Amino acid sequence: MAQDVVRIGIGLVGPGTVGGTLLRQIARQAPAVLSTNKADLRVLGITSSRRMVLSDSGINLHGWTEIFESKSVSADMESFLSHVAGCDGYHHVLVDCTASDAVPLHYKDWILKGGHVVAANKKLGAGALDVYKGVKESCDKCAATFLYEATVGAGMPIISTLKGMLDTGDQVQRIEGILSGTLSFILNTLSERPGTSFSEVVSQARKLGFTEPDPREDLSGADVVRKVVVLARDCGLDISAEDVPVESLVPKELQAVKSVEEFMEKLPQYDDLMRSRLESARAANEVLRCVGIVDIEKASCAVKVERYPSSHPFAGISGTDNIVQFTTSRYSPRRLVIQGPGAGPEVTAMGVFSDLLALAHSRGAPL
Amino acid sequence: MAQDVVRIGIGLVGPGTVGGTLLRQIARQAPAVLSTNKADLRVLGITSSRRMVLSDSGINLHGWTEIFESKSVSADMESFLSHVAGCDGYHHVLVDCTASDAVPLHYKDWILKGGHVVAANKKLGAGALDVYKGVKESCDKCAATFLYEATVGAGMPIISTLKGMLDTGDQVQRIEGILSGTLSFILNTLSERPGTSFSEVVSQARKLGFTEPDPREDLSGADVVRKVVVLARDCGLDISAEDVPVESLVPKELQAVKSVEEFMEKLPQYDDLMRSRLESARAANEVLRCVGIVDIEKASCAVKVERYPSSHPFAGISGTDNIVQFTTSRYSPRRLVIQGPGAGPEVTAMGVFSDLLALAHSRGAPL
Repeated sequence: MAQDVVRIGIGLVGPGTVGGTLLRQIARQAPAVLSTNKADLRVLGITSSRRMVLSDSGINLHGWTEIFESKSVSADMESFLSHVAGCDGYHHVLVDCTASDAVPLHYKDWILKGGHVVAANKKLGAGALDVYKGVKESCDKCAATFLYEATVGAGMPIISTLKGMLDTGDQVQRIEGILSGTLSFILNTLSERPGTSFSEVVSQARKLGFTEPDPREDLSGADVVRKVVVLARDCGLDISAEDVPVESLVPKELQAVKSVEEFMEKLPQYDDLMRSRLESARAANEVLRCVGIVDIEKASCAVKVERYPSSHPFAGISGTDNIVQFTTSRYSPRRLVIQGPGAGPEVTAMGVFSDLLALAHSRGAPL
Repeated sequence: MAQDVVRIGIGLVGPGTVGGTLLRQIARQAPAVLSTNKADLRVLGITSSRRMVLSDSGINLHGWTEIFESKSVSADMESFLSHVAGCDGYHHVLVDCTASDAVPLHYKDWILKGGHVVAANKKLGAGALDVYKGVKESCDKCAATFLYEATVGAGMPIISTLKGMLDTGDQVQRIEGILSGTLSFILNTLSERPGTSFSEVVSQARKLGFTEPDPREDLSGADVVRKVVVLARDCGLDISAEDVPVESLVPKELQAVKSVEEFMEKLPQYDDLMRSRLESARAANEVLRCVGIVDIEKASCAVKVERYPSSHPFAGISGTDNIVQFTTSRYSPRRLVIQGPGAGPEVTAMGVFSDLLALAHSRGAPL
């Protein structure tokens, strides 16, 4: 008995860097996915915050940018979702490649109407706890699938590994990781190049495109907090971003400064602070790293700048690498460590694509 | 619409250290698996090479050792498999926790009769190429599932990560790893404790139970070759163990020595060889590691003892850790690295258990 082909109808929200890369990856891989994975992936709609394009049978992904430019209409989320859900013969998947707070507010209704969700967007997993729980409950009720591998570590197998541990009865005790590529780059560079100042490295990271337009968004640790919350909730902790104490790398006096230019201009005044921390770490043969911590036993999380000895796996990373260390009843005293680039469009899109294939393989999926 | 429960009927071959741990893990986790994963896991038969016990509705896993002792009959693989396949209302899964060459010869027929296979046994994946291809083809033909996460890195997500890359169209260029916990321990200890001799560390590893009864089975690199072949075949290479050049750590003159005692007694005579390699590595601030290499571009594999600078991730491991580094078109220049204990009953059984849950989730599974 040959396996039937499963038809997946995708509504992509956010055709930006990650979403656009995902569409390219799907376009290139579609024939192999059809023959190997027995899945027929069709994109039934693409919407940005302003424009959208819809199709009953699947948008030609090799020419989607032209189609989007020439044939798109004013975006409207309600009619976008109705269109995708209304295409018969597909499993309907909302793929959220935005960083929007608004898009996740549609997940619950979408799931209750029979859809599935794959998100690179962290705003549900790290957002208001009641909204998050509402989505999880609707998934249970409808046997729907909500996957979000790309929210932590991009394409790295972090979420799936954690779920595998939990599902097979491992006791997860602690997850600790360097979860921001930007902060990783800044602190790695500082430890690799003694003499370089904090403000110089921030400025360099900004020039290389590793920071948000306002680097304070990275330096504040807010994005690390979101990833920590996603992981903590997977471990069963009822935690929200407000509950996570975070050590910001933005000097207090510069938090309220309005313009980015003024911030960058004044930052060198605070270099001495970081310099003395770095020097005292170096004297002890240690390095500084910004880590997110989920302590399941204490039911608490934190984001802090910590010192690690040079023999520690966290000390050995370079560039914008992420690294995550799991301590569990099975993975102790020797831990499971996963390390690699945790940002970038190709690997992030791959995380979303993997989720789509996992969904296509899942037994919720046979039509 | 609530999801139906999927019933998985297991025939476990090899209730030894790994198989026994798996049964304990399943026994403890069964209620959660039923409620969370909607899977009802029943063990319909357990067989060792000598004794077997069968059940139509599932063996009580909390008391399986007593049942096995008091109620088992002479083992017979044919009637064991017929019994499991004959229990109606289940997806039938052969779980191979042996290291046997003979058990994998049953996979193909089993699959052609509608069954699935989960293996911790490397002897199919690294065995005769025609047998391997026969099983893979029968899987395609029958839409059957053959999973083997535990064959490389035990519970670490190595195989699943590789498959995710391949399925989403990443180009895997090179896989390089320390894949033997025993060789890892020996070489890590030698680099951590200058002055300790090779023969002393081998003897220590043997006392700690990290080696096979005859440590030459580890030192020869044969087990690393098997893991390399499993990985290479997943990448599409038609390769067998005979094609993999391997650098053995067994001195040539001692390969034919008959007794283990004589081998251990004579090993110190060859310590100088290793000592000089270690010293010249140390002088360059490097360490020795035994690595398995899959070079997809050159379509070749190798197992060798290589030098790594202290900044390399392979230099930073300790104890019996495994580490695997993937170089792909998406994961370069920064690679994906997975590190952790790659042996031991708990993590190996977890690898098998994860595969069972993946099977229960898969769309091959709905009854």
